[in-house]
Amino acid sequence: MAHHPSPQDYRFDYFNVTFPAEYVAHVEINRPDKLNAFFEQMWLNLSTIFRKLSFDPHVRAILLTGAGDRAFTAGLDVKAASQGTLSQPTTSSPDPARTATTLRRHILDFQSCITSVEKCEKPVIAILHGISYGLAIDLSLAADIRLSTTTTRFSVKEVDIGLAADIGTLSRLPHAVGNASWVKDVCLTARVFDSEEALRVGFVSEVFNDKNAAVAAGLEKARLIASKSPVAIVGTKELLNYSRDRPVQDGLSYTAVWNAAMVQTKDVKDAMLSGLQRRKPTFEKL
Amino acid sequence: MAHHPSPQDYRFDYFNVTFPAEYVAHVEINRPDKLNAFFEQMWLNLSTIFRKLSFDPHVRAILLTGAGDRAFTAGLDVKAASQGTLSQPTTSSPDPARTATTLRRHILDFQSCITSVEKCEKPVIAILHGISYGLAIDLSLAADIRLSTTTTRFSVKEVDIGLAADIGTLSRLPHAVGNASWVKDVCLTARVFDSEEALRVGFVSEVFNDKNAAVAAGLEKARLIASKSPVAIVGTKELLNYSRDRPVQDGLSYTAVWNAAMVQTKDVKDAMLSGLQRRKPTFEKL
Amino acid sequence: MAHHPSPQDYRFDYFNVTFPAEYVAHVEINRPDKLNAFFEQMWLNLSTIFRKLSFDPHVRAILLTGAGDRAFTAGLDVKAASQGTLSQPTTSSPDPARTATTLRRHILDFQSCITSVEKCEKPVIAILHGISYGLAIDLSLAADIRLSTTTTRFSVKEVDIGLAADIGTLSRLPHAVGNASWVKDVCLTARVFDSEEALRVGFVSEVFNDKNAAVAAGLEKARLIASKSPVAIVGTKELLNYSRDRPVQDGLSYTAVWNAAMVQTKDVKDAMLSGLQRRKPTFEKL
Amino acid sequence: MAHHPSPQDYRFDYFNVTFPAEYVAHVEINRPDKLNAFFEQMWLNLSTIFRKLSFDPHVRAILLTGAGDRAFTAGLDVKAASQGTLSQPTTSSPDPARTATTLRRHILDFQSCITSVEKCEKPVIAILHGISYGLAIDLSLAADIRLSTTTTRFSVKEVDIGLAADIGTLSRLPHAVGNASWVKDVCLTARVFDSEEALRVGFVSEVFNDKNAAVAAGLEKARLIASKSPVAIVGTKELLNYSRDRPVQDGLSYTAVWNAAMVQTKDVKDAMLSGLQRRKPTFEKL
Amino acid sequence: MAHHPSPQDYRFDYFNVTFPAEYVAHVEINRPDKLNAFFEQMWLNLSTIFRKLSFDPHVRAILLTGAGDRAFTAGLDVKAASQGTLSQPTTSSPDPARTATTLRRHILDFQSCITSVEKCEKPVIAILHGISYGLAIDLSLAADIRLSTTTTRFSVKEVDIGLAADIGTLSRLPHAVGNASWVKDVCLTARVFDSEEALRVGFVSEVFNDKNAAVAAGLEKARLIASKSPVAIVGTKELLNYSRDRPVQDGLSYTAVWNAAMVQTKDVKDAMLSGLQRRKPTFEKL
Amino acid sequence: MAHHPSPQDYRFDYFNVTFPAEYVAHVEINRPDKLNAFFEQMWLNLSTIFRKLSFDPHVRAILLTGAGDRAFTAGLDVKAASQGTLSQPTTSSPDPARTATTLRRHILDFQSCITSVEKCEKPVIAILHGISYGLAIDLSLAADIRLSTTTTRFSVKEVDIGLAADIGTLSRLPHAVGNASWVKDVCLTARVFDSEEALRVGFVSEVFNDKNAAVAAGLEKARLIASKSPVAIVGTKELLNYSRDRPVQDGLSYTAVWNAAMVQTKDVKDAMLSGLQRRKPTFEKL
Repeated sequence: MAHHPSPQDYRFDYFNVTFPAEYVAHVEINRPDKLNAFFEQMWLNLSTIFRKLSFDPHVRAILLTGAGDRAFTAGLDVKAASQGTLSQPTTSSPDPARTATTLRRHILDFQSCITSVEKCEKPVIAILHGISYGLAIDLSLAADIRLSTTTTRFSVKEVDIGLAADIGTLSRLPHAVGNASWVKDVCLTARVFDSEEALRVGFVSEVFNDKNAAVAAGLEKARLIASKSPVAIVGTKELLNYSRDRPVQDGLSYTAVWNAAMVQTKDVKDAMLSGLQRRKPTFEKL
Repeated sequence: MAHHPSPQDYRFDYFNVTFPAEYVAHVEINRPDKLNAFFEQMWLNLSTIFRKLSFDPHVRAILLTGAGDRAFTAGLDVKAASQGTLSQPTTSSPDPARTATTLRRHILDFQSCITSVEKCEKPVIAILHGISYGLAIDLSLAADIRLSTTTTRFSVKEVDIGLAADIGTLSRLPHAVGNASWVKDVCLTARVFDSEEALRVGFVSEVFNDKNAAVAAGLEKARLIASKSPVAIVGTKELLNYSRDRPVQDGLSYTAVWNAAMVQTKDVKDAMLSGLQRRKPTFEKL
Repeated sequence: MAHHPSPQDYRFDYFNVTFPAEYVAHVEINRPDKLNAFFEQMWLNLSTIFRKLSFDPHVRAILLTGAGDRAFTAGLDVKAASQGTLSQPTTSSPDPARTATTLRRHILDFQSCITSVEKCEKPVIAILHGISYGLAIDLSLAADIRLSTTTTRFSVKEVDIGLAADIGTLSRLPHAVGNASWVKDVCLTARVFDSEEALRVGFVSEVFNDKNAAVAAGLEKARLIASKSPVAIVGTKELLNYSRDRPVQDGLSYTAVWNAAMVQTKDVKDAMLSGLQRRKPTFEKL
Repeated sequence: MAHHPSPQDYRFDYFNVTFPAEYVAHVEINRPDKLNAFFEQMWLNLSTIFRKLSFDPHVRAILLTGAGDRAFTAGLDVKAASQGTLSQPTTSSPDPARTATTLRRHILDFQSCITSVEKCEKPVIAILHGISYGLAIDLSLAADIRLSTTTTRFSVKEVDIGLAADIGTLSRLPHAVGNASWVKDVCLTARVFDSEEALRVGFVSEVFNDKNAAVAAGLEKARLIASKSPVAIVGTKELLNYSRDRPVQDGLSYTAVWNAAMVQTKDVKDAMLSGLQRRKPTFEKL
Repeated sequence: MAHHPSPQDYRFDYFNVTFPAEYVAHVEINRPDKLNAFFEQMWLNLSTIFRKLSFDPHVRAILLTGAGDRAFTAGLDVKAASQGTLSQPTTSSPDPARTATTLRRHILDFQSCITSVEKCEKPVIAILHGISYGLAIDLSLAADIRLSTTTTRFSVKEVDIGLAADIGTLSRLPHAVGNASWVKDVCLTARVFDSEEALRVGFVSEVFNDKNAAVAAGLEKARLIASKSPVAIVGTKELLNYSRDRPVQDGLSYTAVWNAAMVQTKDVKDAMLSGLQRRKPTFEKL
Repeated sequence: MAHHPSPQDYRFDYFNVTFPAEYVAHVEINRPDKLNAFFEQMWLNLSTIFRKLSFDPHVRAILLTGAGDRAFTAGLDVKAASQGTLSQPTTSSPDPARTATTLRRHILDFQSCITSVEKCEKPVIAILHGISYGLAIDLSLAADIRLSTTTTRFSVKEVDIGLAADIGTLSRLPHAVGNASWVKDVCLTARVFDSEEALRVGFVSEVFNDKNAAVAAGLEKARLIASKSPVAIVGTKELLNYSRDRPVQDGLSYTAVWNAAMVQTKDVKDAMLSGLQRRKPTFEKL
C-alpha cells in the first residue's frame, strides 16, 4: 500500500498540485501571465482536483494559492467570458425563457465547481495575495481559512460588469463576516479594500507581510491541522459548515448523531494517551 | 417622458425628499426641534416614501439622514406614545386577549413600516449622527449601509421604557454584527455606546469626523452606486438580503434563478465594453 | 412571603451560589485545585442550578465565574472522562450501532445540561479568566455576555483529544462571532488565543485588567440589568435567541406575538413615568 | 356604537358582500356572464375586501362563493390578460432583465392579493361549484375550508396557457392535499377532475348535491364557527397556518407564546361555564 | 442481568403498565370512571413512563390504550382545570405580562409531557376507542400509529372551551393528515367525527369492529415491530420524525450520518442471513 | 440539426431506453430474471440516464417501468449487496469511525443516484407493477407520478434486513402521502400492501387492471404532458418540488422570480392563441 499521494493524479494545465509536507496538499492556480484569471476549463479542473483531494487518504489539509507575485486571481477572464456563454448564450433562441434555462444550468454548474472546495472533506487554507478580485472572493469564501498580505487588493467586482455576483459571494459573505453594513458596501460599490479592512471586518483571520510569509504560515497551519486526528478534523469542518446554516438546536442534534459514530474511533484514546505522555500521536488514514 | 424624479410626489410634513445627484434620492427626517423623534404619522409617511422610491425609475440609491445637528433620531416620541396606543390601547376592553389582538396588529403595522426600508429595491445609506436611540437602531438596521460620526451616541433604548424592542432591532441586530456578547450587552443594558465601539463590533462600516463629512461621504457612495447598472445593484441588494436569512445552498439556488433572467440584460455587454474602453457606461432606467 | 432568594436551594459540592446584590445571583464553579475541570456530576448540577434560577422570582441577572486565580475552567476532566463513558461506553456490546446509541443518548444529555444556561430565562454574564479551554468555550457560548481579562488563555481544545467538539462550540460559535475564517482556524488547530484576539473577532465584548476587575464589572452589569423591568429583560433575551436562529421576518412575527402580551405590563407605564420623573422605578417580581 | 357590519364599506362592482347571519359575512364574486373570470381590478378589490373583513369586529366567519349557476370562477380572464401585462409588459424595453423586473413586481402584487384571503384573521369557507379553473384553485387554496358539488369541474389550468401557475397553487397545493403523485398529475396535465377525486385526495372536505346545498352547508358551518369564541377561532386559524409551514417544535413554541396572552380571555371561563350549564355563550367583539 | 422488564418501575395511580409480549409494553390510561380524563399529575406521570420506556432495553414497541369501554380519553378534566391553572393562574398578579409568563411556562411544560411520547425512541401504537376528545387528539398525534374502532367519536374540542388547542394538535395535525380543508374544519368547528371520516382523511390508518379487535390488532402489530432489529426500528422512527419537519435534502443528509453508524450493526448480517435461511432472527438488546 | 433523440446515447446493459412518442422517453429497468433487482452498477447507470434525459431537448416527459410480468423491481439485490459494501466495508479498518466515514460516502453516493430522478428537469411517470419492494419505493418516490396495477405488491422492506431505509423512502414518504400513521405502519412493519391501500393513502394516484393498461395510460399521460409548453412543464415540476420543502411564502417568492423570466417565453402567446383558435400549439425545443 502506497504511503504517498500521487501527484500524477492531479495533473492539469493551469494548476500545480504538490505535497509539501506529510498529509498536506498544495494547490496552486497557475496562470500567472493572466493574473491567474479563470476560464471555464479551469473551474472544471479545480472541481475535479478538490473532489479527488476530498477522498485521498494521504491528504488531511490543503493549501490554496495563486502563482506569481501579482495576484491570487484577478477573477473571471472577462475577455474569454465575453466571447463565451455569458454574453452569447449557446442557445440560438431569441426566447428569453429558453435563454434563462440555459443560463441557469450554466450558473448552477459554475456554482457547483466552486462549492466543491466547501464540500471537500479536508480543510482548505486560502492565501490571498496581490489582486484578489471577483472570483477570488467567491473561491476563498468556499475555503475554510483565509489569510492575506499587507498588499492584497480585494474587490467584489461583479457589479462593475453589470451583474450581481452569482457563484457564491452573495450567498456566503453574509455568513462569513460580522459587519452587514460593510458587506453591502463592498458588494454594491465594487470598491477595492485592503487587508487591514479585511481583518477588521473578519473577512480574513491573519495578515502577513508578504506572500512568502503568508504561504509559510499557511503551510505551517496546514501541517498543524494534518497532525491531528483526521476523524476529528473532518468532523469539525463538517459540523461547523452544517451549523453555520442552521439553528443552534439543529446543529446540536446533528452533532450528537455524528459523534455517536466518530467518538468510537481509537484516535480518542490515542490522542488522550499521547497528551498525557506528552508525545506526538499518529493516526490511521481516513 | 420625464427624466427627472418628481419631488412633489414626496411631500410630507416631517420629511424632506430631494434629489441631489443623478439617480440619487435624499430622505431627511425633519423634526429637528424634537430631535427627530417619531410619532405614528411619521412612520406611516416614511413607509409611503420608501415604497414610492422602490419603484421610481429615476432613483438608484438613497441617502437617509436626520435634520439638524443634534440627532439622527432620538427614537419614539415617548410623550406622544405615552398618550397613545402603547399605554392606552384603543380597545376599551379589559380582556387581555382582546388587548393583545389590538396590540399585535399595531406592532405588525409598525414593523411593516420599518421593513419597507429593507424591502425598498434600491440601496439605502443611513447616516447616524448625534443622538441615535431606540428607533434609530431599528430604522438603520433596515437600511443597507450604516455610517456614523465621532460624536454619535447610540442606544438600544427600549428596556428603559419597560419593553423588549419590537420593531426590528432584536430580529436584525444578531444578523448584522459579529459579536453576540455585545449584542446582548447593549440590548439588555440600554447603555450608550459610541462610534468607535460601533465600528469595532460591525454595527457601522465607517466613521467620519462630523455630520457634514459623513453626509458628503454617504452622498458620494450613493453616487457611485447609482453609476452602476441598476439591474446589478437591485439584484445584489435582494440576493444579499435573501442569503442572510437562509442556508448557503438555498442562497445559491435562488441566485441562479434570479440571474438566469438578469444576466440577459444588455447592461452586461455595456459594462464590459465600457470597462475595456475605460469609459463610463450609461444604463437604461429600471 | 420571603423577599430574598434561598441559598440553601442551591447547595452543591462544586458550585457556590450567592446573591451579592438585589436580584443578582452569582454562580461560582468551585473546584479550583483541579482548575475547575468538570466531571459528569458537575454538569448535571450546573443544569439543576440554572433551571432553578430560571424561575426564581428573586433573580433577574446571573454572574458565572470560576473559583481561584488560575482558570475559569480547564474544561472536561480528561482523566475522569478517560475512565468514563467516552472511552469505555457503559454498554458491553461490541456492536458499533449499539455503542452509537448509548453515546448519542449521552451526548444529548450533556448538551442539554449546557443548553440549560441558554434556556435560563434570566441573562447570564460569564467571566472568563485564566485557563479557559474546551468546555469553557462551550459553556460561555451558552451564556449571554462574555467578559475576559488580559491574561485569559482560550482554546477550543477538543481536536487535541481526537474529537470534534460536541456539546455546543461547533453549533454556537459560527453564530456568535463575525469571522468565519477565525472560527475554522481555532476549531481546527486547537491553538491558544488571547483576549485581544477574542475581542477583535467578537468572542468577548470587553476585556479587563485582571479577574477582580472583570468580576466587579460583571457584577455591575448584572446589577444594571437587574434594575430594569424583568418583563423587558426576559423578553429581550428570548427574542434575541429566537432571532439568531431564524430569518428576520420570522423574528419579527414572533416578536409581535410576544409583545402583544408583554407590553400590557404596567412596567411600561412605571418605566416611562420614572424616566420622565428621573427616578429609579421598582418592578414587581417575575 | 353600531352593532352591525356596514355593507356600504364593502361596495365593489364585481363583488356582493352581505351579512346573512350574526357575525357571518358572505363574499360573492359577481361577474356571472363571464363565468366570474377575473381581471386586474377584481383581484385588487378582492384584497381590499378581505383586508377589511380581517379587522371588522362584526365578522367572525366568511363564506366565499361565485354568482350564477355555471362557475365559481373560470379563472383569469385570458382575453383581458392577453391584452394586458402578461403578454405585453408595460415597459417598452426589449431588455429581458428589465422586463423580468416589471413582471416580478406584478406577480408579487397579484400573489399578495390572493394571500390576503389567507392572511384574513377570520376563517374563510369557499364553495366551489361548476367551472373552477386556474385562479379558482389558487384562490380556494388561500381559503381555509373548501366545499364543492357533484358537478364541479376543477382544473389547474395554467400549463395550457404556457406557464407554471404563479399566484399560489404550486406553493400551497403540496401542503394542502396528501397525494403528491396526484398533485404533479393535475398540475402537469391541466386535466379536469371532479369532486369525487377532489374529495378522495383531500382537496375538498365535503361534497354536496348542488350549489344551493353547498352554500347552505357552508353558511351553516360559518354560523357554527361564528358562535364560538372569536379569540379561540382567530388563534386556531393563525396557529394552523403557522404550523403548516414549520417543524412541529417551532409550532409548539409559537403556540405557547400565543396562548400565554389568549387564554387570559374571559371567553375561557364563559365557554366552560356555558358548557357546564348547557347554554349558548356570548362573546365580546374582537 | 434481568431479561424481563420491571413492572414495579412503572407504577402510577392512573396508569397500568404491563408487558403482554416479548419486548412489548402496554400503557393503559386507567381512570375509566372519569372517561380517562386527565388532570395535571396524570400528564406528568405519562411523561415519566414514556421517558423510562424510551431507554428500557426490554421494550421495543408500545401499545397505548384507555381503560374501560367508553373512552380512550375524554380529554382534559375541565372541572379540575377550571379550578386550576388555566382559569386561576397561580400568580396573584393582575399584570397580564406576568400572568402570560406563568401561563407560557405552564403550557410549555404540558406540551413537553405530551411530546415525550413522540420523543420516546420506541414506536407507540395508540388505540382510540369510544370518546376521543381534545387531549385524545393531541396525545395520539404524538404517537406513531393510530388505530380506531367503528364507534370511536373524535373531536378537536378546544374551541368549545374558548381556546385554540395548545398542546400539540394544531402543530401536528397539519403534518399528519392529507386534507388541509378538513383540518381547518374540525379544528374550527369542534364537531364530532367518526372513524370512517378519520380513515378517509388519514388521521387513523386502520379501523376495527370494536375495542377488543383493535387492541388485539395493535398488540399483534407491536409484536411484529418488536420482532425486528431494534436498531432498524429506532432509526426508522427517528428518521421519519426528522424528515417530516424538514426539506427532503436535509432528511437525506441526516439519514446518511445516522446509518453510517447504524448499518455497522451485526443485526444487518443476522437479518439478511435469517431471511435467506427463512428463520426468525434474534437481536441483541438496545 | 437532428430532430430525434439518440437511443445510442442511452445504451446500458440493464436498461432499455426508447422513444415511443414525440418528446417522450421510456426507461425500462431490464433485469427481469432477477425481478429487476439492483446492484451498484445499475443505480450508477440509472443516474447517468436521467442526467442525460434532463437536458435532452428531444425529451419532455419520461416513463419509467420494469421489464417482465413479475416486478417493477424487487429492490436491492441482497445477495450482491451481502457480498458488497454494506456488510463488508471496503476499508479494512476495524475502527468504527473510519468505517462510518466510508459508509457515509457510499450512502450519499447511492442517495444521489436516486435523487437524479427527482432532479431531472422533465417529469417522470413510474409504473409500479408486480413486486415493488424496497428500492422500488425509494425510486418511485423520486419520480413525479406513481401509477400501479391491481396486483402490485408494495413493501418498504428495509427493516427486514436490519436497517432503516436510507436512500430516500424515509425522507420523501412523509411529504408524499397524507396519512402519517400509515407511513409509520408500513415503514416499521415492512408489511406488504396493495394498490387499493396505496391509492387510499395517496401513494399512487391511479390504479389499472394490469401492467399493459398501466403502461398505456402512463404513455398517454406522458404524451399529454409532452404536448404542453416545455417551459411551463419544467417550471411546474421545479416549483412544486421547491414548495414541497418550504413555507408557502418562500414558495411564492421563488415562483415570482422564476416566472419573471419564464413568462417572457413566446409559448404563452402561442398557447393562448392556439387555445382561442382551438388548435394544437407547437413549441420550440428546450
